[in-house]
Amino acid sequence: MIFAKGHGTGNDFVILPDVDDRLQLTAELVRRLCDRRAGIGGDGVLRIVAGGSGGSAPGASTVGTTAPWFMDYWNADGSIAEMCGNGIRVFARYLLDHGLAAGPELAIETRAGVRTVRQESGELFSVDMGPVKVGGAATVSTSTDGAVGGRESAYRTVRVGGKNYDGLSVDVGNPHLVIMVSEPVAGFDLAQPPAVDAAGFPDGVNVELVRPTGDRAIEMRVYERGSGETLSCGTGAVASAAAASVAAGRWPDGSDRWLIRVPGGTLAVTPGATASVLTGPAVIVAEGELSTDWLGLSAS
Amino acid sequence: MIFAKGHGTGNDFVILPDVDDRLQLTAELVRRLCDRRAGIGGDGVLRIVAGGSGGSAPGASTVGTTAPWFMDYWNADGSIAEMCGNGIRVFARYLLDHGLAAGPELAIETRAGVRTVRQESGELFSVDMGPVKVGGAATVSTSTDGAVGGRESAYRTVRVGGKNYDGLSVDVGNPHLVIMVSEPVAGFDLAQPPAVDAAGFPDGVNVELVRPTGDRAIEMRVYERGSGETLSCGTGAVASAAAASVAAGRWPDGSDRWLIRVPGGTLAVTPGATASVLTGPAVIVAEGELSTDWLGLSAS
Repeated sequence: MIFAKGHGTGNDFVILPDVDDRLQLTAELVRRLCDRRAGIGGDGVLRIVAGGSGGSAPGASTVGTTAPWFMDYWNADGSIAEMCGNGIRVFARYLLDHGLAAGPELAIETRAGVRTVRQESGELFSVDMGPVKVGGAATVSTSTDGAVGGRESAYRTVRVGGKNYDGLSVDVGNPHLVIMVSEPVAGFDLAQPPAVDAAGFPDGVNVELVRPTGDRAIEMRVYERGSGETLSCGTGAVASAAAASVAAGRWPDGSDRWLIRVPGGTLAVTPGATASVLTGPAVIVAEGELSTDWLGLSAS
Repeated sequence: MIFAKGHGTGNDFVILPDVDDRLQLTAELVRRLCDRRAGIGGDGVLRIVAGGSGGSAPGASTVGTTAPWFMDYWNADGSIAEMCGNGIRVFARYLLDHGLAAGPELAIETRAGVRTVRQESGELFSVDMGPVKVGGAATVSTSTDGAVGGRESAYRTVRVGGKNYDGLSVDVGNPHLVIMVSEPVAGFDLAQPPAVDAAGFPDGVNVELVRPTGDRAIEMRVYERGSGETLSCGTGAVASAAAASVAAGRWPDGSDRWLIRVPGGTLAVTPGATASVLTGPAVIVAEGELSTDWLGLSAS
């Protein structure tokens, strides 16, 4: 079984090219592959399989439109996931590097629908991240001073490191609470999960700490539900740019490009109420073949 | 640049076959390779280079005797290391799998001298770990009830999880303090480094928690100086078997084989005052080639 390892701003993946759809991925195999000591190691697995709403991937058939390749994305814990803004750039880079697709623009099927990815330069890729809903699912209006209102408050209380903050509810296909702070984000304690009113987030919520560092420039740390603090999070970057745009009284502009420093590198985001674009690096570290002995151990 | 990834009881390594000694390893490249997200990931790098006290490896020329292959071992932090009981098994397995050496017994040069490794069965390898000195560098005598005495006490105070324990000083080429406990080792808090009298250990010390679980059977957790808690430690397993042997009034026997459950798997150790043998699995997970793009980034 051939594989590659790659990452986007420190969010890393085991890539499994499976153009003939021969590989029956299981939660157990995904967990073994992502094991950082007894396996290859990664935040998730990106299986490359032909698109067209076919293939053996769970959930692939629910994709309405089609594209040549389907990103069969699994989290390290063996659960399947819809989309990953860092993963899809690495996925696209592999396709282009191996002549499996022509660039600079290519469409990729995901469980969240077809997404367009564009190679901006060697390792820089942009990806369409869909619309941002500030205020979560609620109807929200913003005044010129950046205040946000709506049927229900767009803010929720989040407890981080023993202190309460107001987190702006932002939906990017998944839920986020973004806390704007004025101190360097490095100083916050994210060892423990931020505490929120669980009744308001039955499926959990991702929490971002965001500090403005310049004109349309922010630094961010993120606590991902189910994963803990990570080096980077694509949807978190989009949510953070939107929240920073609200705080700066610029939302919704739709043409603002924000630079976001995350612990794993730098991303750029143009957030918008109808479409958002995430730009960042995609790196292939190595390619190879899994040991048949090691693979065989799964049967024993 | 070709590579392999392997592990022994969860202690994992990036293997770099460099039979022509062309590769100039640097601390920076080692750190990049061992980076678990932006690199391959590992506790260390094992470069395979021809022995004979030659090669470019730092410290190689100090090895007195020679063997066909030299294990150029580097820690993940970029420092060089003398020996690694888990790493040398993985190193030997790679040599045998690739026909670079004939088994079942082979000699391997390390910075700690030439060590003999033996393939016991498919993935099980034994390695000569040298003599164990109970009581550290001090002259020590043991009575039949297992008590240890000497010019200076063989025990040192170690503070773990807010409580003080007596740790038996054991030297296996590197220093260890082994704490015998009666509760399951899983219950101890090793998030913080165990506290010892720093004046007594200017270079630090590895600390093991050991509980007897049956006849010549123990479970162990280890806090490695400089690394924190790890899934396994070869010299720690040897030190722990010796300390358990002392506690059981069997030291020095020299023929006792102890089974040791570590968080990453199971090891067997025959500890002895003149020679010790460590037996455990060696697994090759994958082999491949590093991306030239990724390697090139080091220059930028």
